[in-house]
Amino acid sequence: MTDRSAAKKGVIRLINPQVRKLSAYHVDETAVRIKLDAMENPFPMPEAVRKELASVVRKVPINLYPDPSGKAVKNAIASYWKMKPEQMILGNGSDELIQAIILAFGGPVVVPTPTFAMYDITSRALGQNVVSVPLDDAFELNAGQLLRKAKESRAKVIFLACPNNPTGNRFSDTAIKTILEKANAAVIIDEAYFSFSGKTFLPFLKKYPNMIILRTLSKIGFAGLRIGVLTASREIVDELNKIRLPYNINSLSQAVAVTALNHRDVIEHQISLLISEREKLYNALSGLEGVTAYPSETNFILFRTRKDATKIQTKLKQAGILIKSLNKSGPLKNCLRVTIGTPAENREFLATLKKILTEV
Amino acid sequence: MTDRSAAKKGVIRLINPQVRKLSAYHVDETAVRIKLDAMENPFPMPEAVRKELASVVRKVPINLYPDPSGKAVKNAIASYWKMKPEQMILGNGSDELIQAIILAFGGPVVVPTPTFAMYDITSRALGQNVVSVPLDDAFELNAGQLLRKAKESRAKVIFLACPNNPTGNRFSDTAIKTILEKANAAVIIDEAYFSFSGKTFLPFLKKYPNMIILRTLSKIGFAGLRIGVLTASREIVDELNKIRLPYNINSLSQAVAVTALNHRDVIEHQISLLISEREKLYNALSGLEGVTAYPSETNFILFRTRKDATKIQTKLKQAGILIKSLNKSGPLKNCLRVTIGTPAENREFLATLKKILTEV
Repeated sequence: MTDRSAAKKGVIRLINPQVRKLSAYHVDETAVRIKLDAMENPFPMPEAVRKELASVVRKVPINLYPDPSGKAVKNAIASYWKMKPEQMILGNGSDELIQAIILAFGGPVVVPTPTFAMYDITSRALGQNVVSVPLDDAFELNAGQLLRKAKESRAKVIFLACPNNPTGNRFSDTAIKTILEKANAAVIIDEAYFSFSGKTFLPFLKKYPNMIILRTLSKIGFAGLRIGVLTASREIVDELNKIRLPYNINSLSQAVAVTALNHRDVIEHQISLLISEREKLYNALSGLEGVTAYPSETNFILFRTRKDATKIQTKLKQAGILIKSLNKSGPLKNCLRVTIGTPAENREFLATLKKILTEV
Repeated sequence: MTDRSAAKKGVIRLINPQVRKLSAYHVDETAVRIKLDAMENPFPMPEAVRKELASVVRKVPINLYPDPSGKAVKNAIASYWKMKPEQMILGNGSDELIQAIILAFGGPVVVPTPTFAMYDITSRALGQNVVSVPLDDAFELNAGQLLRKAKESRAKVIFLACPNNPTGNRFSDTAIKTILEKANAAVIIDEAYFSFSGKTFLPFLKKYPNMIILRTLSKIGFAGLRIGVLTASREIVDELNKIRLPYNINSLSQAVAVTALNHRDVIEHQISLLISEREKLYNALSGLEGVTAYPSETNFILFRTRKDATKIQTKLKQAGILIKSLNKSGPLKNCLRVTIGTPAENREFLATLKKILTEV
């Protein structure tokens, strides 16, 4: 070992062991014709709106720091989703809000499994233990078991994605309410896919002081802006604001979000089109020999194949269509997740999948 | 106490005590005519460039997630500052990079004092102890004392802002090199103000494997974009990438930064104008009765007043000019910090200050 490589190893050894053990979050960056892996809204804004957004950007003083409290964009989101601005925090995506919650409360962190991977990744990056509670065969929560494990581990935080990713279902209201009532922990209801289910726990914010609701602009057409939304009691918001970096939402995303959210009709139209496409695709997948599709209240569908899902995903990729493989042993064995695309993309995905199923 | 307020207090008690003890970072949001408190570049891009930026934004697919590795913007910055893209990480401002460093290495964290407040605030928000090492009367580092305290406390991280904020000076190369050579810690050289000093430790990146260099686009005209830059050994970068949130730089900032950095002539012209204005303002302040100005290699000037600095800052604010008061007991007693503005802003600041000095 040379002196330099010894010295490099020396400084790396100063890094927390739990960080060294991690691997970086992997994003599949394969360039494909049809990208149905990331729950993006496939529809761009109409040309007229893009022109308006560009003219707004032209006036943004990018030489100055952004509004640290994001007043205008908070008001726009509050009005769109009927929230109270003083009970909101915006994050650089929900990712940053998940991080802030874990930093504030610490761990252990309880998550159902399978669920959104960032709860686990972020907890471990922050040195917190994760307690996993398996969902049942219908991907439903077992509230009793979850509460027991939360109590035993003295958990500080419970993440419930509802609807859940990657399974697509909403957990039962009863199970969630039981957890909200009985857990001595912050309970995060992550409503990232709210717009595709229409169901929300927002009206119960007053009733459950330990509840934190997450939303995001990412799934409804604005993944590029990185704007996550948190709402909770004023007391929780005040504490989390101490951890939030003061200028965490850049000026361009703030300005563009405010203007884009004025076009509710466009957004709502895209969402209802995606919901109707989801139902079509669900019915089509359910009709395929050797495929089990799971009902979805999101903008994606989880389905299980009788044949090797990894092979199917690879062949789709070779055909220029990227979907997500969740195939490993356990409850997601031979499972794939497809994001709802444009009608043409969904048709091509389905036709290609049919063809591949006859080949593998 | 009502049931609800008891329940609210219950969940707040779950939050880490070190977070509860903190107060949120305060940004003075007073609306003023002349804002010289935040080290912003006062010059917007020329109208033609703004038009170009807007046309770039019109084509950004904001419905899709940003490039997680920020390839194009990393290449643009690498070329502008002669860095290696594979040894870089971008942050949502340097703030996020400071947070990532502390998360990876842990504490204690050693900082000279006075220095940039976010090292201390972020360390404490993350539950890490901060060891302060006072600068001498000329705001110079005492390398021996710093190394001793770092060793005693078994510090993991040392932050050296160079040039330093709020003092404006660069620490001696010898002191910094001694610390880089002898400290058993990651040593962060924060070169946020590099463009105004022209001096850098970048050529020594190979020599010191424990060195991490920070830069930012904020001071050179793009504070609104929130793009901080970190460069270090490939090994350190790989570890920090495990903590970085995968989509931490939004699409609009990425696209706008790439295009803006093509206009090097504009940026360089603005920087040299600010440097020449700084020298003018320094000479003028030095000539004022009852004012001691400190030499600066940044885009701001620290100065001390014989009379009560808080009163002077308040009177300036009443006149529509916001500068930063650092006045409290200790080495910055009666100190104020003024950011270099446009020639007209600097003239008005100086004239108003002169007037106020005769009144207080």
